[in-house]
Amino acid sequence: MSTSRLIYLPLGGAGEIGMNCYVYGYGPADAERLIVVDLGVAFPDMDGTPGVDLILPDVAWLEERRNQIDGIFITHAHEDHVGAVGHLFERLGAPIYARAFTANIARRKLSEYGFSERTVTTTEPWPHVVESGPFKVGFVPISHSIPESSGLVIDTPAGRILHTGDFKIDETPGVGEPFDPELWASLAKDGVKALVCDSTNVFSNHPGRSEAEVGPEIEKFLSEATGMVAATTFASNIARVRTIAQAADRAGRSVCLLGRSMRRMIEAATETGILSDFPSVVSAEDVPSIPRENVLLLVTGSQGERRAASAQLANGKYMGITMREGDTFLFSSKTIPGNEKGVIRIINQFSEMGVDVVDDSSGLYHVSGHANRPDLETMRDLVKPQTLIPMHGEHRHLREHVKLGEKAGVQGILAVNGMMIDLSGNQPKVAEYIETGRTYLDGSVKIGQFDGIVRDRIRMALNGHVTVTLIVDENDEPLGDPWCEVMGLPEQGSSNAPLVDILEADLGQFLGRAEDRTLADDDKLEKELRTITRRTAMSEIGKKPEVTVVISRLS
Amino acid sequence: MSTSRLIYLPLGGAGEIGMNCYVYGYGPADAERLIVVDLGVAFPDMDGTPGVDLILPDVAWLEERRNQIDGIFITHAHEDHVGAVGHLFERLGAPIYARAFTANIARRKLSEYGFSERTVTTTEPWPHVVESGPFKVGFVPISHSIPESSGLVIDTPAGRILHTGDFKIDETPGVGEPFDPELWASLAKDGVKALVCDSTNVFSNHPGRSEAEVGPEIEKFLSEATGMVAATTFASNIARVRTIAQAADRAGRSVCLLGRSMRRMIEAATETGILSDFPSVVSAEDVPSIPRENVLLLVTGSQGERRAASAQLANGKYMGITMREGDTFLFSSKTIPGNEKGVIRIINQFSEMGVDVVDDSSGLYHVSGHANRPDLETMRDLVKPQTLIPMHGEHRHLREHVKLGEKAGVQGILAVNGMMIDLSGNQPKVAEYIETGRTYLDGSVKIGQFDGIVRDRIRMALNGHVTVTLIVDENDEPLGDPWCEVMGLPEQGSSNAPLVDILEADLGQFLGRAEDRTLADDDKLEKELRTITRRTAMSEIGKKPEVTVVISRLS
Repeated sequence: MSTSRLIYLPLGGAGEIGMNCYVYGYGPADAERLIVVDLGVAFPDMDGTPGVDLILPDVAWLEERRNQIDGIFITHAHEDHVGAVGHLFERLGAPIYARAFTANIARRKLSEYGFSERTVTTTEPWPHVVESGPFKVGFVPISHSIPESSGLVIDTPAGRILHTGDFKIDETPGVGEPFDPELWASLAKDGVKALVCDSTNVFSNHPGRSEAEVGPEIEKFLSEATGMVAATTFASNIARVRTIAQAADRAGRSVCLLGRSMRRMIEAATETGILSDFPSVVSAEDVPSIPRENVLLLVTGSQGERRAASAQLANGKYMGITMREGDTFLFSSKTIPGNEKGVIRIINQFSEMGVDVVDDSSGLYHVSGHANRPDLETMRDLVKPQTLIPMHGEHRHLREHVKLGEKAGVQGILAVNGMMIDLSGNQPKVAEYIETGRTYLDGSVKIGQFDGIVRDRIRMALNGHVTVTLIVDENDEPLGDPWCEVMGLPEQGSSNAPLVDILEADLGQFLGRAEDRTLADDDKLEKELRTITRRTAMSEIGKKPEVTVVISRLS
Repeated sequence: MSTSRLIYLPLGGAGEIGMNCYVYGYGPADAERLIVVDLGVAFPDMDGTPGVDLILPDVAWLEERRNQIDGIFITHAHEDHVGAVGHLFERLGAPIYARAFTANIARRKLSEYGFSERTVTTTEPWPHVVESGPFKVGFVPISHSIPESSGLVIDTPAGRILHTGDFKIDETPGVGEPFDPELWASLAKDGVKALVCDSTNVFSNHPGRSEAEVGPEIEKFLSEATGMVAATTFASNIARVRTIAQAADRAGRSVCLLGRSMRRMIEAATETGILSDFPSVVSAEDVPSIPRENVLLLVTGSQGERRAASAQLANGKYMGITMREGDTFLFSSKTIPGNEKGVIRIINQFSEMGVDVVDDSSGLYHVSGHANRPDLETMRDLVKPQTLIPMHGEHRHLREHVKLGEKAGVQGILAVNGMMIDLSGNQPKVAEYIETGRTYLDGSVKIGQFDGIVRDRIRMALNGHVTVTLIVDENDEPLGDPWCEVMGLPEQGSSNAPLVDILEADLGQFLGRAEDRTLADDDKLEKELRTITRRTAMSEIGKKPEVTVVISRLS
């Protein structure tokens, strides 16, 4: 056993918010038995990943060691924790463990890829444990913004690890188990090797508030509103969805669920017995026949997503329902950094319709699902770990969280994606740097972050595209003139003649004086044609486009 | 005179923040004499305007009436108010009026386009007025975040208009004239037809704070910091730049200006006599020889701009200066919505370097340049206008500002870009809707928002691009196989063969069975080749690419 080591390796979620994937290993170096915690996705954007559908962790390192993987443990059913199971299961092939609600969601994802229900084992919460190679893993209920979130107790021959998953300290969370400080203290009573801890809200200085505080405010709001009200939150935030629906019920409003994920989540929560006291709902078809002041729409799209119910209502109509002057739209949610523009677009569209919008700036209608700074300190002080390993955060969050621990005398290590940490000794140390990145799901193909495909797309978006075609005859002589077609470029520039004409003239002139050895050499010829195209475009329109050159040789 | 009317027509800035351009007219309908207030730009982004360099107001309506334009008045030197003068002057050709500092900046922009210094007339502040057709226009000093900001008194035969420009209520603004409530009340004593008023901060409920409150906080901060400190703010915020530099001076730190606009703005402010008490500065070359705790870098890039000094320092080095663990970076600025990602990227890069970052979340190191809600009420109550016309805001801001006025019994009208308002009567009314949009400066060419050019770029970024070339001989028979080249697409898909091979095979198969009349018809043939390419790509890689088809006919 002396040659065995305990390792921690984040492959996603450490140095970013999203795409969580953490590996623990125990055994001889390079032959550890491995478990994976979470397989999440991140979401693409036009800035850096145009055309990409989803961002997945790069699991190449795991795939090469798939025979060493004993299990995959999913802490909760948020997309950034469970979203990649369907896409990546085949490459890892290990059994998946999760609690009932999470397992329900995971199975829906796996079945889309034709995997059997049995790939996922539904697991009872702590004190039940799953034996997985040298690990014993227990799911410890913890409060968050989705039902059945769990921290993990990971017992290893080298000691106990507590992996918090996403959490907040909320003793009245509405749906899901309350945070239980005594339970967490008891888990730690024999010593904890490492606390691997959520860092999202480390910069929020006030203690977190409880879900229970939101309900009365929303009820008051719904009672005072005059027309129809639509409210949005993450569909997976079942507690909030219930809070809003119950407030609506008490305020004399019928609830109508709009948006696929809203209906699907309520379905999953009902199937798994988590939701039993949800008010009865009306269908979209019924809404027009109900007085506006008696309606509450519960809609998807809290982040301004273009296809969600919120965006479609803002565009004018969804499922036959139209909002109008006197109605109100409530964001019972926080805008995730980066989504501001989409959210603001919706707010302005509603403004044009005369619909009042209320956002979370008052703080009355939303509480965060993540532990704030004082709550992170509470967790740390309950657990008293040998080492604090911050996760689920950008670099700035992880660094701040390490500093926060060090102020209280707890050693920490800042491990970002790809940094393998050896936890065997009393002090954690970096064992290795794994080359890792991101995998893009692009249409139906998985491509690598550094394949150059997305880079080319960004370049076409910034610079436009020119196709240059040329036919060369059997004697290596150009047959006719080169032909240009442009896409994403102005039709004319400084010469006040069509850009393609100017390009073709310059290319034709070059060919007229080109040497035989250039004309005979595809590479050389292509390079010259590209250079001239870019140079002429620069002088005509002030841009250097991307160029595809096609030389056809008759033979 | 009874057939004359007074009109207001926003062409930019009403329904958006940026690209300000407001037109006032007086005279017979459709033959009004016109003045233009501000000619600003907006900034492009990857989401909606990839590859675009600047966004300018669409002045087609003005250009068609250039003989009716008597003057262009620039309220202050922010890019969203003065940025388009160089690009659009030629199309309007009217004299430009501005106060000294603004005129200095405007002349620099015009001279880049070869226009004479004399296109801009430097104007003294109120009570001096410029007679411009039927208008008398006076520049009234008002506090904002750039020197010599002015509201305009616009006297017309139909009454007085007060156009606030951008402003805040600050009686101790540091640089620039303090807000003078008595002056504004006196301007209004004989009645004001319309108050055309900044709306940016209508959702900020607390009264605005003064620039004077920032200095002591920054001085304390700089005294307590241990290593080198870099601070960023908008270079044009001369008051803040001076506040920071003076605080540095008192804290025993030498000031080094980094970034072109930072140096240029200080230069303009010094040339025009606005800045006389700026501490002496050191050059970037001198910095390495000064102890780190005695240095303050004043840098550009408060919005995370990729090429600015802040981003380059975050990348590792700028002008030979490297920040490191123990140093601090201060954002003395607010992140404009939409710029969060760029700012967060910089913060994380500094985090990786061990540099602490302090942002404006404490509220200690920044105050806004725009009037908050109570300050907007103060202005309205000072002026008591017949009509309130909100400007400088998105739709949501304008609407809220109208509502705010109506609560106090002041009639308002919500006019967005392109809505011409007739102010002649006691109640404003919409006279006409002008077709207007945005003009994109794209490289060296100006293109229209709806030309389809940017749309094509976005499509290439989302879908990738395929070039299909085909040679057809004299008998309308394909000569050899079609040839495909891809850009921004995966090399292979579901068939595990190169995508281009699959595309070429499918296209070849189609050609083999194509009817003669299809082969003889370029349009028909192109359409078929495009359709097959998109269909095959969809089945191979799950994406429908943009396609350029080039058919070359030998003859």
